[in-house]
Amino acid sequence: MLIVQKYGGTSVGNIERIKNVARKVARTRDEGHEVVVVLSAMSGETDRLVSLAHEITLSPAEREMDLLLSSGERVTIALLAITLNSMGYPSKAYTGRQVGIITDGIHTKARIERVAAERVREALNHGIIPVVAGFQGISEASDVTTLGRGGSDLTAVAIAAALKADLCDIYTDVDGVYTADPNVVTEARRLDKISYEEMLELASLGAKVLQNRSVEYAAKYGVKVRVLSSFVDGNGTLLTGEDEDMEKVVVSGVTCDRNQVKVTIVGVPDKPGIAGKIFGTISDANIVVDMIIQNVGQESLTDISFTVPRADVNKTREIMAGLIKDIGAHELGIKEDIAKVSIVGVGMRSHSGVAATMFSTLAAEGINIMMISTSEIKISCVIDAKYGELAVRALHRVFELEK
Amino acid sequence: MLIVQKYGGTSVGNIERIKNVARKVARTRDEGHEVVVVLSAMSGETDRLVSLAHEITLSPAEREMDLLLSSGERVTIALLAITLNSMGYPSKAYTGRQVGIITDGIHTKARIERVAAERVREALNHGIIPVVAGFQGISEASDVTTLGRGGSDLTAVAIAAALKADLCDIYTDVDGVYTADPNVVTEARRLDKISYEEMLELASLGAKVLQNRSVEYAAKYGVKVRVLSSFVDGNGTLLTGEDEDMEKVVVSGVTCDRNQVKVTIVGVPDKPGIAGKIFGTISDANIVVDMIIQNVGQESLTDISFTVPRADVNKTREIMAGLIKDIGAHELGIKEDIAKVSIVGVGMRSHSGVAATMFSTLAAEGINIMMISTSEIKISCVIDAKYGELAVRALHRVFELEK
Repeated sequence: MLIVQKYGGTSVGNIERIKNVARKVARTRDEGHEVVVVLSAMSGETDRLVSLAHEITLSPAEREMDLLLSSGERVTIALLAITLNSMGYPSKAYTGRQVGIITDGIHTKARIERVAAERVREALNHGIIPVVAGFQGISEASDVTTLGRGGSDLTAVAIAAALKADLCDIYTDVDGVYTADPNVVTEARRLDKISYEEMLELASLGAKVLQNRSVEYAAKYGVKVRVLSSFVDGNGTLLTGEDEDMEKVVVSGVTCDRNQVKVTIVGVPDKPGIAGKIFGTISDANIVVDMIIQNVGQESLTDISFTVPRADVNKTREIMAGLIKDIGAHELGIKEDIAKVSIVGVGMRSHSGVAATMFSTLAAEGINIMMISTSEIKISCVIDAKYGELAVRALHRVFELEK
Repeated sequence: MLIVQKYGGTSVGNIERIKNVARKVARTRDEGHEVVVVLSAMSGETDRLVSLAHEITLSPAEREMDLLLSSGERVTIALLAITLNSMGYPSKAYTGRQVGIITDGIHTKARIERVAAERVREALNHGIIPVVAGFQGISEASDVTTLGRGGSDLTAVAIAAALKADLCDIYTDVDGVYTADPNVVTEARRLDKISYEEMLELASLGAKVLQNRSVEYAAKYGVKVRVLSSFVDGNGTLLTGEDEDMEKVVVSGVTCDRNQVKVTIVGVPDKPGIAGKIFGTISDANIVVDMIIQNVGQESLTDISFTVPRADVNKTREIMAGLIKDIGAHELGIKEDIAKVSIVGVGMRSHSGVAATMFSTLAAEGINIMMISTSEIKISCVIDAKYGELAVRALHRVFELEK
C-alpha cells in the first residue's frame, strides 16, 4: 500500500518525539508499505512566531507573515529526514514549493489549486521516504503561502489525492472520532467508520479533530482518511464514503458547542428588506452567523434571534447599537450562557421521528429549547448552557450510541 | 546611490534590535538612497538548530541540514519587512531562491554560481525595499543550499555585484578594521581604507571581521565594501582596490593568531619524497597546514616543523604517530603555546627593509623567532605565546601605526 502519514505539532514537539515518529514510519516501511510523511511545525512554534510579529504590529504584512510561519515546518521535516537517514532509511525533506503545492495568492489562508508531487513520486520510485512540510504552498508569483490553521491536514489529504494513495493516516493526540466527548459521556465510544459528511458536521460543531477543508477535499477526491493517536496504538476512525452499515445507524454522534452566543433584536418592524439589512451589515463585518430564527410577533413587529461566535460578541454589540436605531427596532438582547447541542448521522435521511425523539428527550429532562436548526443529517438545539452536559448524556443514551 | 546593507545576527537578535535596523534602513531611504537589506539569522539561532540536529546524530544528512539552517533567515527577513511596512516603508522579504542566488550542489558550503536578482531589481523599480535572506541559495536541482558560516557577508557582496551597487555596507559589532586589536594596543587606530588583499591577509590571520570568500568576491567584482558598527554611528572602514595613498603606508596592521600549534618531526631521513609523504598524509586528513620549515641537519637527518590549527592537534598527533615509524624519524614534538605575529601592508611591495625592522624589533624585546613566513604583502613570525601581546605592541609602535 501507499500510505500518507501526517503528524501534528504535539507529535514532533521535541527530538524524543521526532525519534518516536521516525520509528513509526520505519515500522510501516518494514511492513512493506510505501510511506510519505507530512509534518506540522513543533507545537508552540507557530504561536511563538506570531507573537514575535505581534510585538511589532498587530496587523503584519500577510505575505511576510506566510514566509515567517513557513519556517516552522522546515525545521521539523529536516529533523525527521535526518533521523530516518541516521537509522538507515533513506529519506529526503521537501518544502511546499518542492512538492509543488500550488495555491492561489491569498496569503495566510491560501487555497490549493493543484499538487504536482513530481519530486515525491520520484523519491518513492528510488525507495526514498519523502518528508513533506505541511501547511505551506507556493503561489503562481513564486511567493510562499500558508493554508490557514490546521492546514497540514489539508496538505496530507491533497498529497494523498495527487498520489492516489491507499490511505491517509492523520496522527493526532486523540485516538479517533467519538460518539460524544468522553470527558462528558463516560460511555462514549470510538467510531470505527464515519462518513465525510458526518465528519464535516461534527467539525463545524466544534469537534476539532480534523480541519474542515481537509475533510471537504477528502470527500471530493475520495481519499480514505484515518484518524489515529500518535501515542497509543489502535485502529482509529476511518473517514470514507457512505455505505450500508452507516445508513443503518440513525445517529453517529452528539456534540455540544459552547462557542456561540445568542443575539436577539426585539421589536423589529415587519417590513421587507429589514432582515437583509441586518444580516448584510453583520456579514460585511466578517462575522459568521450560524442559526437564525424569526419569531412571529404582534402589531407588525417581529423578534429576530441569531447566533454568532463568542469571539465576535463585542463587535456584534457595536454594530447592532447603530443598526437598531436605523431600523427602528426596540432593543437588543445578548445571551452568552448558551450551548448548542447537536446530533449527527447519515441514517437520519432514511429514518423518521429523529427530531421528535430529540425534542421529547430534552423536554423529559426539563430542558427548554431556545432555537432549532436542521440539515439533512443534523439537528441542533440551542439550550441554556448549564444543561449542556445533561443534554449530551441524555441524547447519547436515547440513541443508544454506547452500543 | 544604491546601497546594500548587511546586518549580522547580533544586530537582529531580538525585536528591539530589528526595529533599530528598520530605523537605520528608513533613514538611508529618507536620505534619498535606494536600499537592499541582507540579514543573518538571529544570533544563537543557527547554533540552536545545529544542536537539535546533533541530538539526533553527529553526522546529519547535509541536504537536510541546509534546509534546517535556512529557516533562521526566513524569520528575520520576514520580521524586518513587517517592521518596515508598519512604519510606512513598503518592503518585501525574499529568500535565497526568490533572489536567485544560484549555487553549486555542495551542501553546507555551496559556492555561488550566479545571482539573478530579478525580483530585487523589480522591487527597487517599484520603490519597495527588498529584504534578502543571507547565507542561503538554491542549487540547479532546486534544493536549498547554504554558503558556510559567515555566508551572509558573501550574499551581500554578491547582490551588490549583481546590482552594480555603489556601496555594500556590512554592519557588525565592531566599527571598522583596526591597525591592531584595540584590547591589546590602546593606540590602535581604525583604518579609513584598506585594500582587498590586505583584508584577505588579515582575515586569514584571525581578524574575523569579514568572511574570506566575501572579500575575494568583492575583489573580483570591484565591490566597494564598508565595515560599520550596527550600534555606533561612524564612517567605518572602506575596502577597495589599491590606490596611491595605500602604497605610501608600509604596514597597515599587526595581528596575533593563537589558533595554531607547532609540530616538529625530529630526525627525518633526508631522502627525496619524505616531505611529500608527510604533507600528503596530513592533507588527506583534511588538516590545513599553514607554515612549514625544514631545518638543515647533520648526518643525512633533518627536522621538519609546521603549524596546524589548534582544533586539529589530536588528529595530527594520531596520524603522526604512525607516520613517524613509517618514515623512520626519531620523534615528534608538539608545542602548543605559540603565537603567530604578522604585519600586513601593500606598501611592502615598494619598501625594502621591512622584514629586517620586524626581526630586529622582536630581538630588541628579547623575543626569539621560531618560524618565519612571508608573502608579497605580509610577514609572519611564530614566537612563544607569552610574548604575543608584547610583540604586537612593539611592532605597532615601530611602524608608527598610531599615526
